[in-house]
Amino acid sequence: MSKQTDSQLAEREEQLQKRYEAYRALGLDLDLTRGKPSREQLDLSAGLDAPINGAYFAEDGTDVRNYGGLLGIGPAREFGARLLGLRAAEVLVGGNSSLTLMYQYVAFAHLHGLSGPGTSWSAEASASRGKVKFLCPVPGYDRHFTICEHFGIEMINVPFAAGGPDMDAIEAHVVADPLIKGIWCVPRYSNPTGHTYSEAVVRRMAGLPRIAGERFRIMWDDAYAVHHLTDDPPPLANLMDACRALETTQGLVVTGSTSKITYAGAGISFLGSDPGNVERFSRFLSASTIGPDKLNQLRHTRFLPTAEDLSAHMHRHREVIEPKFRRTIEILNEELGGKDVLEWTEPQGGYFISSDTLPGLASRVVALAADVGVKLTPAGATFPYGRDPQDRNIRLAPTFPPMAELEQAVRVFACCVELASVQKLRAG
Amino acid sequence: MSKQTDSQLAEREEQLQKRYEAYRALGLDLDLTRGKPSREQLDLSAGLDAPINGAYFAEDGTDVRNYGGLLGIGPAREFGARLLGLRAAEVLVGGNSSLTLMYQYVAFAHLHGLSGPGTSWSAEASASRGKVKFLCPVPGYDRHFTICEHFGIEMINVPFAAGGPDMDAIEAHVVADPLIKGIWCVPRYSNPTGHTYSEAVVRRMAGLPRIAGERFRIMWDDAYAVHHLTDDPPPLANLMDACRALETTQGLVVTGSTSKITYAGAGISFLGSDPGNVERFSRFLSASTIGPDKLNQLRHTRFLPTAEDLSAHMHRHREVIEPKFRRTIEILNEELGGKDVLEWTEPQGGYFISSDTLPGLASRVVALAADVGVKLTPAGATFPYGRDPQDRNIRLAPTFPPMAELEQAVRVFACCVELASVQKLRAG
Repeated sequence: MSKQTDSQLAEREEQLQKRYEAYRALGLDLDLTRGKPSREQLDLSAGLDAPINGAYFAEDGTDVRNYGGLLGIGPAREFGARLLGLRAAEVLVGGNSSLTLMYQYVAFAHLHGLSGPGTSWSAEASASRGKVKFLCPVPGYDRHFTICEHFGIEMINVPFAAGGPDMDAIEAHVVADPLIKGIWCVPRYSNPTGHTYSEAVVRRMAGLPRIAGERFRIMWDDAYAVHHLTDDPPPLANLMDACRALETTQGLVVTGSTSKITYAGAGISFLGSDPGNVERFSRFLSASTIGPDKLNQLRHTRFLPTAEDLSAHMHRHREVIEPKFRRTIEILNEELGGKDVLEWTEPQGGYFISSDTLPGLASRVVALAADVGVKLTPAGATFPYGRDPQDRNIRLAPTFPPMAELEQAVRVFACCVELASVQKLRAG
Repeated sequence: MSKQTDSQLAEREEQLQKRYEAYRALGLDLDLTRGKPSREQLDLSAGLDAPINGAYFAEDGTDVRNYGGLLGIGPAREFGARLLGLRAAEVLVGGNSSLTLMYQYVAFAHLHGLSGPGTSWSAEASASRGKVKFLCPVPGYDRHFTICEHFGIEMINVPFAAGGPDMDAIEAHVVADPLIKGIWCVPRYSNPTGHTYSEAVVRRMAGLPRIAGERFRIMWDDAYAVHHLTDDPPPLANLMDACRALETTQGLVVTGSTSKITYAGAGISFLGSDPGNVERFSRFLSASTIGPDKLNQLRHTRFLPTAEDLSAHMHRHREVIEPKFRRTIEILNEELGGKDVLEWTEPQGGYFISSDTLPGLASRVVALAADVGVKLTPAGATFPYGRDPQDRNIRLAPTFPPMAELEQAVRVFACCVELASVQKLRAG
């Protein structure tokens, strides 16, 4: 498109402007913002609410209705271990949100101290008159960044390379600054880029705690562990095993949940680390809770008792959402293919398509779409502090809307992208 | 007993020692420590797990299975309002633990700031080189005290008078020290003393925020709001209404849960305050969660849709636990009546009997009982820092054990109390 003459561009702008006004006339109210499962997906887990008929007892006799059990019930710890490639003794099972477990872990490390009084990140930073910092591969997950902002932890952007985050940059950072205390990773189908980290990246990641110090934590958010969109999902090496080999398990915190397996708001969550870490973390939690909802843990382990059940269940999710991803990409190709105004990913799993406009246009595109009733994730949301240095990245979430609404919203998006691009090219 | 001669006491000690050794020979394993509902009580809520049959939608159309809804679903906010004497707009509904909401509220106020950056209790304390403090009516609930210890908030003991905590002492404290930022109250069937605060106490409590400053909070833990043991429960004046009259609602935080109504570990919880406070608190929570388990909220509102249903349900609880309280008190009377070695309460509701030994004997009694297989709440647990200044208070929790075990445990307890007392009297 950049090779077109100004009169060609002017003509195109006029066409797009007409189309854009036609969208406005439709009075749309569409939403591509959040990675939420659709109703059809939620319905797949109706079996979770099967009658309990008095069977309120875990295998060890625990009455799941009563108080207690900070680590979660045994079968749920095994469920988490299967899901995340851990051992059951390494898993703590929480309530309905792994985000809460991540937040609590950061609170534990930052304010309370991973190994007792005086060992908190914030105390270490005060002592050296510096600031606690986290590395953030970008674009990434906004709610990870919110946790850091909430605690006043400074964030440092790290770019992605082909196999995952740029490990050279990461290693250089942690060598240079001992107050870098963590890194946020979504190692499989990374939100939003779709990266699955290569074996080389995982291997280097396992060595990171050695150079970053004993209070450094890899926050390994395996949110999309079983959320494949293809028959042949890319392999992800097991970081816990790699850490075991290097004796760096104390530096690893793995999280996950069933939010996008069963119910987004009523699932169960997992935090895994070496058993000593898990024990210390659970003691920290004991000030704020007498234990998680074990009945919901029991429901989950009964609904999906084996790896095969889980795999079959996730295949049913794929049948619902894969056509939505496919259709989104088809429309982007139809509307924008060959025009060099947008790059987008074709994810093999997860919940997002990541797109990049021409530099400086993401906010403009989001504003244009909003103006005709299509809500997109705010420009910048995938970067720390909401600041996309190039103002390019827009995250698309195709799972929630019904197909017809999705198609409409993607066409509007494409129109806005092209309109903003033509205007930019004409301006200069 | 103190009027007996030494030879009478010596004879009695020998009898008690024999009885104590006979208990040891039984190899008991009994537990009077925790205020947990019994299995029979949990069974009363089996209706909570009625089939859902696709009815996953709150009245406003919210799909309770999906993400979102930080304040909780409408009907659950109404449930909390009915339970705690509030308006629905004043209620936030959380997960399975009101303790977690209290902890989060204290974290919010102490570390984050009730009205934004720079307004945290800890910042105010640093600025004046002092320490944040809480008033603690004693004996009280150990987990309230744990929250203060966890955050390094200093605790000041306040004694009970007939109508509740000593309001003269409380008012004098807050006038003298602006860094006193809160008070823990269990206004109805106080844990463990059983006090229900008088109307005069509630009225003075409502005025407290006026003299204690805008960041002071009354933590009003109405844990036993509907947990009556008699037909004629003592009235508790509505503190929120009293605060409304004095325009001090910003100083009040009311909490409660269904832990001792439905399932101790799988209920729902409530935090109430004025709507502005609730809104600011929910924004604080948004860093750590996308929302509570709304499906469990829906289950609860369907299981107990009206005040009458709740009242009938609580009557069934009473039928299960009132005989346990009665029997405990009968045995204490039988064993220790007129001996002047133990004082105990006869609660009209709640979960505990509070007892006081002769000064200095509580730890000894707890150790004696433990030695023959009867676990009692650790001496001191009902006081901040686990320090009972007189070493007298022992909390008894009769609800959980089956009746036969309860009777046995109470007899052992009585024997240990008398044995320790005789030994003390003989030692002079």
